Amino acid sequence: MSEVRNDRTVTVAALKERVKEFTDARNWGGGHRPKNLAMSITIEAAELMEHFQWLDNDDYQVDRLTPEQREAIRLEVADIAIYLLSFCNQVGIDLAQAVHDKYDINEKRFPVESYRK
Amino acid sequence: MSEVRNDRTVTVAALKERVKEFTDARNWGGGHRPKNLAMSITIEAAELMEHFQWLDNDDYQVDRLTPEQREAIRLEVADIAIYLLSFCNQVGIDLAQAVHDKYDINEKRFPVESYRK
Amino acid sequence: MSEVRNDRTVTVAALKERVKEFTDARNWGGGHRPKNLAMSITIEAAELMEHFQWLDNDDYQVDRLTPEQREAIRLEVADIAIYLLSFCNQVGIDLAQAVHDKYDINEKRFPVESYRK
Amino acid sequence: MSEVRNDRTVTVAALKERVKEFTDARNWGGGHRPKNLAMSITIEAAELMEHFQWLDNDDYQVDRLTPEQREAIRLEVADIAIYLLSFCNQVGIDLAQAVHDKYDINEKRFPVESYRK
Repeated sequence: MSEVRNDRTVTVAALKERVKEFTDARNWGGGHRPKNLAMSITIEAAELMEHFQWLDNDDYQVDRLTPEQREAIRLEVADIAIYLLSFCNQVGIDLAQAVHDKYDINEKRFPVESYRK
Repeated sequence: MSEVRNDRTVTVAALKERVKEFTDARNWGGGHRPKNLAMSITIEAAELMEHFQWLDNDDYQVDRLTPEQREAIRLEVADIAIYLLSFCNQVGIDLAQAVHDKYDINEKRFPVESYRK
Repeated sequence: MSEVRNDRTVTVAALKERVKEFTDARNWGGGHRPKNLAMSITIEAAELMEHFQWLDNDDYQVDRLTPEQREAIRLEVADIAIYLLSFCNQVGIDLAQAVHDKYDINEKRFPVESYRK
Repeated sequence: MSEVRNDRTVTVAALKERVKEFTDARNWGGGHRPKNLAMSITIEAAELMEHFQWLDNDDYQVDRLTPEQREAIRLEVADIAIYLLSFCNQVGIDLAQAVHDKYDINEKRFPVESYRK
């Protein structure tokens, strides 16, 4: 595809639409039930974590990761996003709104003043 | 805030920016290391899963969930997204591009023709 | 109970029996299906992980953990074991044999000679 | 090995000893830090869950699983146990005692009388 498709140009709705389109074209909707998708998100998240299993935080400075590791990590992140967006599609969640609403709660729980010196 | 903030209007970049802004304002960047964030995504995903632990798929039809369950689930989804976007911020991943690239791979792995009758 | 119940004296079978007894007495067997129990093990494992989310490996030296943290961790470990043993009960797995069989495989995959200087 | 090694004969301590022996012989103790091991338990639990990702509870009746599935599941269970026991070794947890203590708590939280008709 030649169209531009990056974070600057793509809305969350467009990304959700891509997920729906791919899933529907394969009749996978029947398996994409909320319970199964919650499992799938967790499974993919654990696979991402596997890249960080044995070393210390400092060993995972971005510039120490090999290009192969970075690409594998990038595609794991995509998998998590895909199942998360499919979950939103199935359950009817507006993700951008959910994130903003959660931050409204967090702003009160973690008032920014207490973190300023 | 009075601005419109939903999936139709918000780009992935804008959502990532919201995450960065909140984290930076609290100087949490030091803890938001890739290894820790991969753990956080998994922890939140497992919390989402907890809502679906004991019953069968059919019992989680959207219309059977109570409004309280739906709201709790919506906020768990937001938490997963927040850590996932923070991970992208820290490691320098363009999420929309990653998702589209992953689907380019998946289109070949799961050719749509084989799912059509 | 006054009987001695520690790792030196308790067999894996006795521990599995304790799990079965508790579950059966509450008629929880119906929910303790393999799929659900695999979720439960993961959920409890993620809760254990939550204790180690934000700091580096070195910060979790055993002697730096508070007594409260150690007790909370100890009970999370128990929860993981309980669901793991219930899974074994449901699916009919002899855990000691499984561990020994897995090590027979691992002995070949990671020959001890290659780790000696 | 010709010795009998099953749940009836093996104590939890003996199983922990097997884990310690294998790990020590490969000098893996340095990586087997509590934070890393909590991640490892979760990663293996998610791999177990992967076997139950797409179908309903009823589809995983033990007698419907193929011998290959059962063997793969059995070895995943062993992996979870190995990391859990290594965690206990590292942090100094008596697992049998932890399980019994947790059940003492659970007996009060879920009194058996309320489950009897």
